[in-house]
Amino acid sequence: MYSFLNDYSEGAHPLVLDALIHTNSEQTVGYGLDPYCQKAKDVIMNRIHNHDVDIHFLVGGTQTNLTFISFALRDYQAVIACDEGHINIHETGAVEATGHKVLTKPHVSGKVTVDMIREILQEHPDEHMVQPAMVYISQSTELGTYYTKDELQALFTFTRENNLYLFLDGARLGSALVLDDAPDMADIAKYTDAFYIGGTKMGAMFGEALVIVNDHLKKDFRYHLKNKGAMLAKGRLLGVQFYTLLKDSLYEDIGRHENEMAMIIREALEEKGYPLYMPSTTNQIFVDLPNTDITKIEEQYMITHIKKLDQDHSRIRIVTSWATAEEEALRFADFIKQL
Amino acid sequence: MYSFLNDYSEGAHPLVLDALIHTNSEQTVGYGLDPYCQKAKDVIMNRIHNHDVDIHFLVGGTQTNLTFISFALRDYQAVIACDEGHINIHETGAVEATGHKVLTKPHVSGKVTVDMIREILQEHPDEHMVQPAMVYISQSTELGTYYTKDELQALFTFTRENNLYLFLDGARLGSALVLDDAPDMADIAKYTDAFYIGGTKMGAMFGEALVIVNDHLKKDFRYHLKNKGAMLAKGRLLGVQFYTLLKDSLYEDIGRHENEMAMIIREALEEKGYPLYMPSTTNQIFVDLPNTDITKIEEQYMITHIKKLDQDHSRIRIVTSWATAEEEALRFADFIKQL
Amino acid sequence: MYSFLNDYSEGAHPLVLDALIHTNSEQTVGYGLDPYCQKAKDVIMNRIHNHDVDIHFLVGGTQTNLTFISFALRDYQAVIACDEGHINIHETGAVEATGHKVLTKPHVSGKVTVDMIREILQEHPDEHMVQPAMVYISQSTELGTYYTKDELQALFTFTRENNLYLFLDGARLGSALVLDDAPDMADIAKYTDAFYIGGTKMGAMFGEALVIVNDHLKKDFRYHLKNKGAMLAKGRLLGVQFYTLLKDSLYEDIGRHENEMAMIIREALEEKGYPLYMPSTTNQIFVDLPNTDITKIEEQYMITHIKKLDQDHSRIRIVTSWATAEEEALRFADFIKQL
Amino acid sequence: MYSFLNDYSEGAHPLVLDALIHTNSEQTVGYGLDPYCQKAKDVIMNRIHNHDVDIHFLVGGTQTNLTFISFALRDYQAVIACDEGHINIHETGAVEATGHKVLTKPHVSGKVTVDMIREILQEHPDEHMVQPAMVYISQSTELGTYYTKDELQALFTFTRENNLYLFLDGARLGSALVLDDAPDMADIAKYTDAFYIGGTKMGAMFGEALVIVNDHLKKDFRYHLKNKGAMLAKGRLLGVQFYTLLKDSLYEDIGRHENEMAMIIREALEEKGYPLYMPSTTNQIFVDLPNTDITKIEEQYMITHIKKLDQDHSRIRIVTSWATAEEEALRFADFIKQL
Repeated sequence: MYSFLNDYSEGAHPLVLDALIHTNSEQTVGYGLDPYCQKAKDVIMNRIHNHDVDIHFLVGGTQTNLTFISFALRDYQAVIACDEGHINIHETGAVEATGHKVLTKPHVSGKVTVDMIREILQEHPDEHMVQPAMVYISQSTELGTYYTKDELQALFTFTRENNLYLFLDGARLGSALVLDDAPDMADIAKYTDAFYIGGTKMGAMFGEALVIVNDHLKKDFRYHLKNKGAMLAKGRLLGVQFYTLLKDSLYEDIGRHENEMAMIIREALEEKGYPLYMPSTTNQIFVDLPNTDITKIEEQYMITHIKKLDQDHSRIRIVTSWATAEEEALRFADFIKQL
Repeated sequence: MYSFLNDYSEGAHPLVLDALIHTNSEQTVGYGLDPYCQKAKDVIMNRIHNHDVDIHFLVGGTQTNLTFISFALRDYQAVIACDEGHINIHETGAVEATGHKVLTKPHVSGKVTVDMIREILQEHPDEHMVQPAMVYISQSTELGTYYTKDELQALFTFTRENNLYLFLDGARLGSALVLDDAPDMADIAKYTDAFYIGGTKMGAMFGEALVIVNDHLKKDFRYHLKNKGAMLAKGRLLGVQFYTLLKDSLYEDIGRHENEMAMIIREALEEKGYPLYMPSTTNQIFVDLPNTDITKIEEQYMITHIKKLDQDHSRIRIVTSWATAEEEALRFADFIKQL
Repeated sequence: MYSFLNDYSEGAHPLVLDALIHTNSEQTVGYGLDPYCQKAKDVIMNRIHNHDVDIHFLVGGTQTNLTFISFALRDYQAVIACDEGHINIHETGAVEATGHKVLTKPHVSGKVTVDMIREILQEHPDEHMVQPAMVYISQSTELGTYYTKDELQALFTFTRENNLYLFLDGARLGSALVLDDAPDMADIAKYTDAFYIGGTKMGAMFGEALVIVNDHLKKDFRYHLKNKGAMLAKGRLLGVQFYTLLKDSLYEDIGRHENEMAMIIREALEEKGYPLYMPSTTNQIFVDLPNTDITKIEEQYMITHIKKLDQDHSRIRIVTSWATAEEEALRFADFIKQL
Repeated sequence: MYSFLNDYSEGAHPLVLDALIHTNSEQTVGYGLDPYCQKAKDVIMNRIHNHDVDIHFLVGGTQTNLTFISFALRDYQAVIACDEGHINIHETGAVEATGHKVLTKPHVSGKVTVDMIREILQEHPDEHMVQPAMVYISQSTELGTYYTKDELQALFTFTRENNLYLFLDGARLGSALVLDDAPDMADIAKYTDAFYIGGTKMGAMFGEALVIVNDHLKKDFRYHLKNKGAMLAKGRLLGVQFYTLLKDSLYEDIGRHENEMAMIIREALEEKGYPLYMPSTTNQIFVDLPNTDITKIEEQYMITHIKKLDQDHSRIRIVTSWATAEEEALRFADFIKQL
């Protein structure tokens, strides 16, 4: 059974694995203070044309979100997300467990909008309510859509004017980076207070690179990292991986590949007339199918059930990755067309 | 300016104050282990025909909610409320600050329904999402409505079947206790896992009496109380007050009085044709008025702005209390009629 | 049985009670924004010759400690106390429950010293250990001793130089204020970053007045207060009480009285040759007695067992208060002499 | 410069790395539900002759400690450790950050003793103090010593009688497993409520295997794991590694090797007459040297400064690992002898 369940079904991209193998026997100091982490930081700083940022490497996405959000917020402050935000639904209350409410409004194409934030601010005028202090967005979004450069800039302008931090979760950043009107990494560094470059879902064995741009969010972050159990002893493993992913175009190559594989499948679904839930151009396809067809698909493929729509139809999710072979994508597309 | 802002604008009901005065110079042990707390517990146990409960006295409502909810839930568990639930909006994220997500759906007449809970349960199937473990309701509700005995029983049956605790916030319990089809205190003890009998908003100087019915929620609660800074040194102040309120019908008398005062005002509003937001029969009236009339009211009365409805209309809240003199209620009713 | 268990065995000082009675029926706004809280703040600011402080009224000592300490510290920061510090032993882990380690060294006469702090700082050099960020002291101390003005100044100088906050718990402040070489309230405001003026143990029915001097610790404290369940609805109860205690010399009168009562008892103990554990000049006497004598005492008096010393001896604590009648102190002194 | 800084200076043991390479391109489900994690669990269950345990794989030691301890304790409960316990000193307050006090007494040869626990229990009699609920120990200890099977059994008997959980941190478990009178893995499973088998410091690339023996500590642990950001997406990476380490004697071989390398160095130190701080037989050597000799060592080797002893002497730590080549150990021993 071939799996389109998610983008972390395999280990690491071969080039990342090679880098781990070749550096395996070297001795380095621990906790991210090694030369590989420094090299990885350097390539990130060069990419964003900004050397005045702090960069930290963490192991996973939920860990990165809870560690950074709890660092940035005071006890009585809340983070704004859309209802489909990963921190709101898929992290088992990890952000709340650090003491912070997640304030939400229904998403617009999987995204947070300025109107949504403005409305939440108006609803929270005084000290009897939590104080909204951060906006959390994902690029690409949980529903496979993405923020354009203009949208990101508009969000940042508004959050800046309203004394809110803007934090971008880039678990699947590569899939959006390669889209035409999407912000590149330098844009993201310019239009957020902090963001993370996802590794786990983008070809690393594991790891996320958190880039803190806003000076107010830098001091003592390593203490916080350790305090949350998020400082990896062999930190160099993260440095080696991110250096490999980001030193040239590998990260974008992976993003482009997974999007292309997804588009092969999307076209088959559209040709077949299945309604797409979202017009995704990234590596996650949400589509509504008759249950009978889903049953047939599941005889040969692993996909994710998202939601029962009515007695006879359900929404499913199909995800491609760096590891999705073109022949598998084509075979799946054919299979769909013949349903 | 006469205030209809809330039900805690004055100090204590004269009988409660008298009891505090008369016991003031007595020596007792601290922390709620004194004879007055015991007497207060006894009258509560007699009222609910159940001596197998644990009763603790706390100072305020938010304190009681955060202390009890954080006691009952594990780190990964969430509490269900309606969107207007006090813990969701008016406690500055106090429940989240103890580590727990508040899961909400839009209220139905200010209330939580079985359907709402069922839907939330269906949306939280596995360990990647918080685990709903408690339902929080208020009697009377934040919008002045109340649960009937049948409604409470239905909620309890469903929560019991689904392994959820049912917790009732009785900050304004007295206002509902005196209504015909509402559950009495014994019913509430029968159809919840825990509830609290509000004092602060019901004529006490301060204080809330938490009644824990479910055996699983009893052990070591006094440790937790102290751990959350919620164990009053001079605990006997709480015992004295609740004994006074509950030893005969004072608590209900207060509830009846504040409802009657509210109905005098409500009738004037209805006569005048102002649309009530909710058909409240308790001491909180939510009503929609032209801004011009609100301006006139505010020249002589203090009321709460709830929400701007459109360019010309807003929703306000009027609250009566044990201290609302009938002549003031009548004078306000007249004033409204002459707007 | 007369109780020397503690200084919160009775209700409120008669003058405080009177003030509560006389203001009981007035309507005020809630949450500490009323005129009485303002008047209480004014008298405090006048006493300390500093109007650039923030003052908040809370209900109890553990609540005040946990609320303020958790406000001042980041997740990875710790508070330094001596091993006998109230927050370290007698608050059921309330400070840790807000996420912060309490770092301790053995006390010197019940006190924290500069050497102690310096040693702790040296032991915590990097991000693999918590970061000491605050020093917590009590005046008078848990063992009945007190910091002289010079000692307080030395602590403040050192903490300031080392980027640590100095927070003074004044649960029993009045008993130290009246001692010759002790700092007065203005000194305390000058040589701490924040302190609280205890009410519960000093003749108030309940309540503590937190004075925040350091500008960095002021912003949004009311949000935090509510978030921790520590904002009293009828805040004016606290304002009325502190205004009464502090508007003239009542607070000091109470402190002087309880010290004098303690000295009557101390003299009897010394005359009898019982070794004092600490040379207390405040209202707490720690003394080591044969168990046989303790048994006799307990037939007529309530006192606190502190510690078993050996097979035949134990340490006990005797506490006087605003309510200790001179005739009772004298009677107890006689009783001791005749043991 | 050759490093004896710690046992995580290199990547993974070659056999572990090979296993990761060979499974890299396989598709598996995420979050530890894959066949490799199952195989790893099976070999652990076989080793301990107990299939009625729950096993979870985490990434790092601090993460494992904070996740498990916060799972086992209620808000008002504390964990007992010796003053040198890793959770007490080297985790930046991670356990306190989850809300729990760490209660300590000075270590005895790096270890917790029954007397120590008894004393702490006596000091915590009631609800005004935290409730001790767990004992935390490390095997081998932070100072290179270890618990014998008899010592472990005595601790377990005592903790069981006193209603305390016993949790063993096995970050360096392999170094103790191979010692004659030390408990084997089956003994540890028998005489603890939970323990973890360290990977990071024992030849894995990363990872710790938590074994929960006590039934009361099993329910819903996966929720808690996710809630703390500790559930690895590509969980199979952990399964692959632990299966490789534990399926035959690799784990013990590594432990034996690192101990042997340490003994080569220890003998040189002893021959030279340097006083050992602790009589370690595991892979950590603590030894007191003249500063002049330390300076010479540091020209060629990386070691850890532990403590300044006096003007001229300091304590250092030397750590060997699976990767320490025998020729390097011998070369270092020679170097020491020629100091």
